[in-house]
Amino acid sequence: MENFLYYTPTKVVFGKGTEKQIGTLVKEYNCKKVLVHYGSGSVKKSGLLDRIYASLDEAGISYISLGGVVPNPRLSLVYEGIALCKREEVDFILAVGGGSVIDSAKAIGYGVTNEGDVWDFYEKKREPKNCLPIGVVLTIAAAGSEMSNSSVITNEDGWKKRGCNNDCCRAKFAVMNPELTMTLPAYQTACGCVDIMMHTMERYFNQVENMELTDGFSEHLIRTVMKNAKILKEDPENYNARAEVMWAGSLAHNGLMGCGTDGGDWASHQLEHELGGMFDVAHGAGLAAVWGSWARYVMDARPERFAQFAQNVMQVEQGEDAAKTAQKGIEAMEDFYRSIDMPVSIQELGVTLTEEQIQELADKCSFYEKRTIGCVKKLDREDIYKIYQAAR
Amino acid sequence: MENFLYYTPTKVVFGKGTEKQIGTLVKEYNCKKVLVHYGSGSVKKSGLLDRIYASLDEAGISYISLGGVVPNPRLSLVYEGIALCKREEVDFILAVGGGSVIDSAKAIGYGVTNEGDVWDFYEKKREPKNCLPIGVVLTIAAAGSEMSNSSVITNEDGWKKRGCNNDCCRAKFAVMNPELTMTLPAYQTACGCVDIMMHTMERYFNQVENMELTDGFSEHLIRTVMKNAKILKEDPENYNARAEVMWAGSLAHNGLMGCGTDGGDWASHQLEHELGGMFDVAHGAGLAAVWGSWARYVMDARPERFAQFAQNVMQVEQGEDAAKTAQKGIEAMEDFYRSIDMPVSIQELGVTLTEEQIQELADKCSFYEKRTIGCVKKLDREDIYKIYQAAR
Repeated sequence: MENFLYYTPTKVVFGKGTEKQIGTLVKEYNCKKVLVHYGSGSVKKSGLLDRIYASLDEAGISYISLGGVVPNPRLSLVYEGIALCKREEVDFILAVGGGSVIDSAKAIGYGVTNEGDVWDFYEKKREPKNCLPIGVVLTIAAAGSEMSNSSVITNEDGWKKRGCNNDCCRAKFAVMNPELTMTLPAYQTACGCVDIMMHTMERYFNQVENMELTDGFSEHLIRTVMKNAKILKEDPENYNARAEVMWAGSLAHNGLMGCGTDGGDWASHQLEHELGGMFDVAHGAGLAAVWGSWARYVMDARPERFAQFAQNVMQVEQGEDAAKTAQKGIEAMEDFYRSIDMPVSIQELGVTLTEEQIQELADKCSFYEKRTIGCVKKLDREDIYKIYQAAR
Repeated sequence: MENFLYYTPTKVVFGKGTEKQIGTLVKEYNCKKVLVHYGSGSVKKSGLLDRIYASLDEAGISYISLGGVVPNPRLSLVYEGIALCKREEVDFILAVGGGSVIDSAKAIGYGVTNEGDVWDFYEKKREPKNCLPIGVVLTIAAAGSEMSNSSVITNEDGWKKRGCNNDCCRAKFAVMNPELTMTLPAYQTACGCVDIMMHTMERYFNQVENMELTDGFSEHLIRTVMKNAKILKEDPENYNARAEVMWAGSLAHNGLMGCGTDGGDWASHQLEHELGGMFDVAHGAGLAAVWGSWARYVMDARPERFAQFAQNVMQVEQGEDAAKTAQKGIEAMEDFYRSIDMPVSIQELGVTLTEEQIQELADKCSFYEKRTIGCVKKLDREDIYKIYQAAR
């Protein structure tokens, strides 16, 4: 069992109607001006934005707005937000949306409070020292950014998708009303469920002796999301299922599922980041598309762990040996992905890769042979190339 | 599923040797003078206190000390601590110990920063508005006070044991090195395990439709503590078992196991508080002594819930009906308590109650018929009397 740091200062306000508390929550931070940051028009159409403005008005808080965040949020809008916040002397950012909006808000928060180019933090050239305080009204259960210390931004110059993890960006509060996720398209709901499961699985597959508590929590979380993802496919307005998935989304990525581990593998995320950057695919679907190929490529390095996963999560019966059990577990997970209409190959993701594109993905993902990814098995450019090949 | 608030701002620094980071951790709060608060001489004898002083010295932080906290911590020492802190202009309290020391530190923190008599907060006459910042070096896995918002103090005037829950007292950080708990006597280790399990069970037994995620986490946490309590009986220096129990202790009482519930029952705690106040028994042992009698008295109000507990936690096979399964689960838990040398009656706790004392306990626990306790079944003075009778 490894030493660990666990730090989740975000105050979670969870349940029906909780967005009405926004004004009161923001007021606690004595801010002068709030930037309300959001994505597409759906939060306008649904009336959510109006309810939030009304709550801010009632609390006597002045604000400005910046919409237009897209999935795989762009650096150009981050720059625009930084300039806007500096000009308008914004001292609090309220992110209304899912992971993309929250990640964009975090990047803006870094840019306003630190000198120099904010992209440096995503290129790992420097560490941010500060961030504007951030509040969240969550509308998509997926990325877990509402409680996490991470932010992922896509730089259009070269379509590079990069992450920056730092505790100073953790949200002050997160308002989570599962009702707000009921109108999501089925595809997006399923993508969110995969993302949540994968945040847990990335930590679960590691190279250390594990903590029993963390293992059991992780296995239960994945099983619960799988069960409720299936319920939501048939009954998208099921409140309890929405709530289970939403809370799982936060717990999957706030650090709890990594306690006592070495941090986990994360190769599937790195593989997907390049796909997301180059083809702008939905993150959860991209993860589903590469996971099986990653798992088959690395399982020999830790067959017992994959066998435990197969038995405790996928309810696979123990096979002749760990490798066979492991294999069945991977197949069962792919079957599950199919059952909620998620792809299990890049082709099914809607992208037909050329040989040249696979080479480019492998180049980018290995930082042109400057890094390896993963920890179950350290993957170099050649390994990465083979996994993209297998997943095509 | 109920709406909930989840707020756990405490930074957890977990693992071997982490107490060496104390100076650095305290320094982040820019304090002028620290009160190092502790209990018996064991932290002196073990050298822990010296290591902490050395770390504070190295960080250039000045401090004073106040020891002498006892189990069921006393109001008189709290008053002494408040006067000392005011006189010495202390602005940070470092609690080195278990729940009693941390609870005493919280009470002192309330007393220094709020006007009037601190006991008012424990009598629920007023709410505290503030608390001095508190840091923790945990030496006993049990009370969960290192991450909780609760503090329980005993007033020697009438031997009343009362709790005060408020988010402002949550510790800024908690240093948790499982090695520090290795020298605890077996009885105290077992008491701690019961306390941890009971914090989870009090929340688990409630009157609402529950959250699957929370249910499964709770069931896994209780099972894990049971398994490791047995390991520690044979092998008290087993690091991994100490670590599982220590982390379980924090998660059992930081709010996570109550998400989506109505808060839970807590009658067993109320029953034990009066025993603890009058006879100064160990908290965990007191809980074990009354739990079975409480469970038998109330199980008819929610037999399915007790049956779920029996099956998922105690691994009891489903019986003819929920009531029979529930009954077996309660017996199995009492068997477990016996297996780790915990009492399952007040007699076994070392206290032979007279009829008069049972009447007095019932009077005190019902606030002289001014309140009911519990939520699985609301218990009035008569019910409370009967449970003490059954548990004697």
